[in-house]
Amino acid sequence: MLNRVRSAVAHLVSSGGAPPSRPKSPDLPNATSAPPAAPPQAPRSPPARAGSGGAAPARTVEARASFSRPTFLQLSPGGLRRADDHAGRAVQSPPDTGRRLPWSTGYAEVINAGKSRHNEDQACCEVVYVEGRRSVSGAPREPSRGQKEVTHESLVVGAIENAFQLMDGQMARERRGQQVEGGCCALVVVYLLGKVYVANAGDSRAIIVRNGEVIPMSREFTPETERQRLQLLGFLKPELLGGEFTHLEFPRRVQPKELGQRMLYRDQNMTGWAYKKIELEDLRFPLVCGEGKKARVMATIGVTRGLGDHNLRVCSSTLPIKPFLSCFPEVRVYDLTQYEHCPDDVLVLGTDGLWDVTSDCEVAATVDRVLSAYEPNDPSRYTALAQALVLGARGTPRDRGWRLPNNKLGSGDDISVFVIPLGGPGSYS
Amino acid sequence: MLNRVRSAVAHLVSSGGAPPSRPKSPDLPNATSAPPAAPPQAPRSPPARAGSGGAAPARTVEARASFSRPTFLQLSPGGLRRADDHAGRAVQSPPDTGRRLPWSTGYAEVINAGKSRHNEDQACCEVVYVEGRRSVSGAPREPSRGQKEVTHESLVVGAIENAFQLMDGQMARERRGQQVEGGCCALVVVYLLGKVYVANAGDSRAIIVRNGEVIPMSREFTPETERQRLQLLGFLKPELLGGEFTHLEFPRRVQPKELGQRMLYRDQNMTGWAYKKIELEDLRFPLVCGEGKKARVMATIGVTRGLGDHNLRVCSSTLPIKPFLSCFPEVRVYDLTQYEHCPDDVLVLGTDGLWDVTSDCEVAATVDRVLSAYEPNDPSRYTALAQALVLGARGTPRDRGWRLPNNKLGSGDDISVFVIPLGGPGSYS
Repeated sequence: MLNRVRSAVAHLVSSGGAPPSRPKSPDLPNATSAPPAAPPQAPRSPPARAGSGGAAPARTVEARASFSRPTFLQLSPGGLRRADDHAGRAVQSPPDTGRRLPWSTGYAEVINAGKSRHNEDQACCEVVYVEGRRSVSGAPREPSRGQKEVTHESLVVGAIENAFQLMDGQMARERRGQQVEGGCCALVVVYLLGKVYVANAGDSRAIIVRNGEVIPMSREFTPETERQRLQLLGFLKPELLGGEFTHLEFPRRVQPKELGQRMLYRDQNMTGWAYKKIELEDLRFPLVCGEGKKARVMATIGVTRGLGDHNLRVCSSTLPIKPFLSCFPEVRVYDLTQYEHCPDDVLVLGTDGLWDVTSDCEVAATVDRVLSAYEPNDPSRYTALAQALVLGARGTPRDRGWRLPNNKLGSGDDISVFVIPLGGPGSYS
Repeated sequence: MLNRVRSAVAHLVSSGGAPPSRPKSPDLPNATSAPPAAPPQAPRSPPARAGSGGAAPARTVEARASFSRPTFLQLSPGGLRRADDHAGRAVQSPPDTGRRLPWSTGYAEVINAGKSRHNEDQACCEVVYVEGRRSVSGAPREPSRGQKEVTHESLVVGAIENAFQLMDGQMARERRGQQVEGGCCALVVVYLLGKVYVANAGDSRAIIVRNGEVIPMSREFTPETERQRLQLLGFLKPELLGGEFTHLEFPRRVQPKELGQRMLYRDQNMTGWAYKKIELEDLRFPLVCGEGKKARVMATIGVTRGLGDHNLRVCSSTLPIKPFLSCFPEVRVYDLTQYEHCPDDVLVLGTDGLWDVTSDCEVAATVDRVLSAYEPNDPSRYTALAQALVLGARGTPRDRGWRLPNNKLGSGDDISVFVIPLGGPGSYS
């Protein structure tokens, strides 16, 4: 995924916003611009399927899709085995002795408590140098008469959106050619020319903690937050519902005996509830059902954005899920130059394992607690913070489970956290 | 339209949020709740059509659709003629001697400078009393187990959304039965149990001016603000584009000689711009074209929400516009109990004639200037404010036109303004 985004952004930068005569390699060494990108990616667990006895494993997996951990962790074979130990769940971070991540970015991860064999989160972080054919500046070129204005920012956003779409297409081709199945969420951060671009498709989350305050940099894509998009798709393309589902939402499942009675409903255009008379097709299973963590599209998926999963079908049915599962990210832009950041201002990226048991405010409190215990110019403070966040979500082994200090269950999921300082030592300049 | 909303809300209130055994008349006299509703409605001018020599007039118009002005203006036959005079453009308000509008709401209107024979804005304002079968309170009932929570607020929003949809359906039936054509925008305000509901479909606008600050209570629906919805519809239902239009957006019209070259584009999923190779179908006319006031859907309409217009077709084509023109409003809710309002806090509703030449901030400045010239408890101050806003948008006749003090052109359109005090004399209690 990072390759796609890197390639798209590099391509864009190298062409200066104009179409180049031929694609450029993103690996050109001559530096003119340096966008670090830090994407943790959490593969979605395949949903349990009625009648198939559990998750369907990939049939054939190529060598390049075999298990690994981020290269920047510099794990030895022994270290890789320890990182893969579900009983110990040791927190992994880049070694304190080696080269730091750009901007002294902090990172920590931990494997799940046994729900899948390997850690299915993946992360990478790179500084990309590309050769610019023209000078690239933040100022957009003057649009010609009769031509819509295209800002530099909207070109970067478009390049990232395109990268997600191309990656999804690539996964569709690999599925056909090599029988590689599955899918994943993706959260990508690109820094370019003073702006941070955060692109999210799935259930990872990014927040900025600035002066103790939380600024959301992504939003969650669930059957509830995307209800109207999903209903519209089902309404305009009823063949996608296969006569099995209704695109309408009701406060509860409609019973056959209620035929002809009036009940509250919502359609793709409505935010409120109104009454309708129950007809035969309202008895079909609802396209969007359940609430909170249990909300599902077509009784199958609980996350509505992500890459891959082209083969995913409705339980006991041949209906494809994919058109409802969209690969498009929402891209939010944060202008670093609009505010003077201090060393305690950070961008925190976490996979669902973190956010399942940790609120934004709890993260902000941990940011304050951990960073205040270190000197502002100590570059190891962001790794310490990432570790504290992962430990706080994992908990400690007690009563045959992983428990938090309040005795609630910790996250048994894989957990990965990046902490990117916005005004720390070695930050952008 | 008001009848529809009144009926829907009355129905809802009378049934206490539960389905009634039989529909109730909205005209029952026993008062338990009093929702005033103040909707100015601006009929959209039919767009000029190539080849038809101008706007297509309605063929047959029933007596009940004949010209009138709001009953609360209490116009005599002579007054009606003066209100209909395009040369004088006298500002009309309810007589100072008669019964005031609820809450001492202010109102003023003026006819256009000649663009259509009559004033095509319409307004009404009513207090509705309905009999409640159960006690209605702001607190939602406890949802049953397995049943989604339905708040009282979401029931009111749904009732209003439904009212717009039913009104649109009624206009479709009247078109077929009685050859009544045309369409209009609608802006509706409902007050119920401490909350103000503002529903907008079209290019009217509502703002709250509170303590001098502007709080937008509606947003504009234009081909630009609704680009992604329109593109998605064209993408999922390509038959609506009839092979004449492309759902993709380009910064400018693509030329045949550019076939095979790369150009920036945006599709229904994108907020940024990316490159694509120009193909034959990209040479079609763009679904969304133009910018600002000149933005159009299918080269025909500049407003993308409204009622009616079921017969509207693309210039020199049989393609219908209606699926792109949606009747659904956006409903915003303002809780009056969350803030202690003073007599200078007002909700201002205006048709496009006001907003074409007046910014939100200019309205806020006029609110301050006019209201400070009256005693806080003078109930005529809101009518004076409505008149000042209409006069400020109309201007004065000079240099063969209507001109503003800065010598720019005033609005030659119909202009209607309501000013609803949120903490004034006789306000809600």
